[in-house]
Amino acid sequence: MSGTARCEGDWLDAVAWDANGLVAAIAQERGTGTVLMMAWMNREALRLTRETGHAVYWSRSRGRLWHKGESSGHQQVVHDIRLDCDGDVVLLEVEQRGGIACHTGRHSCFYRSLDESAGWRAVEPVLKDPDAIYSKG
Amino acid sequence: MSGTARCEGDWLDAVAWDANGLVAAIAQERGTGTVLMMAWMNREALRLTRETGHAVYWSRSRGRLWHKGESSGHQQVVHDIRLDCDGDVVLLEVEQRGGIACHTGRHSCFYRSLDESAGWRAVEPVLKDPDAIYSKG
Repeated sequence: MSGTARCEGDWLDAVAWDANGLVAAIAQERGTGTVLMMAWMNREALRLTRETGHAVYWSRSRGRLWHKGESSGHQQVVHDIRLDCDGDVVLLEVEQRGGIACHTGRHSCFYRSLDESAGWRAVEPVLKDPDAIYSKG
Repeated sequence: MSGTARCEGDWLDAVAWDANGLVAAIAQERGTGTVLMMAWMNREALRLTRETGHAVYWSRSRGRLWHKGESSGHQQVVHDIRLDCDGDVVLLEVEQRGGIACHTGRHSCFYRSLDESAGWRAVEPVLKDPDAIYSKG
């Protein structure tokens, strides 16, 4: 076993953290293959994601760890963590609790499609009113 | 028609370009749903992507436009362009020419998976020797 022994954290050193200590993280839904969202992780967020089995991101706007679903209940159960060739993007295979990843109440955050007249058109339905999602006590 | 008339470029203004004038762009394969890669686009790259129907990125390392496949022949034919809720990530639905998106000769750039002993393990095969991909005159 000594030949394969690793110190906890070695795997985190393989990530090419950017100047802000972050890595881009894409969440893809298990089964459907739908790309749900992209967010950012710092070292602690990625460590916690592996440790807890639930997606944890770094909220750049709030400047703190963001346990996905902490307000909405829409957690992401992580089944696989991939790293790209450059080491600067992570791809999560997730099970999306509640079927809603987007704060607008949609399945995916990528709900706007560029149409033939060069306009962004919402092509995915709102599954739940955001007010109802975030009104929990 | 006047109610829906748009000036060319309006759709580009809806993108939340970052401080470097870039937006993250994810390429997902049509049909399989495989996430192939993530790269960056500036305004010109995104405009050209729509105009030509082929993915054009901004190479941060080379500091220039990068017509995907210009060296390898592995172009990406774009079928759909999506924008996320925050406007700072683009998702392309593409047909991957040659079936190889990664410069390592693999189908996808996300070929490393975090295994149970916390090591990154290559789980996708090399389909073509990179030397053979980039040796074209």
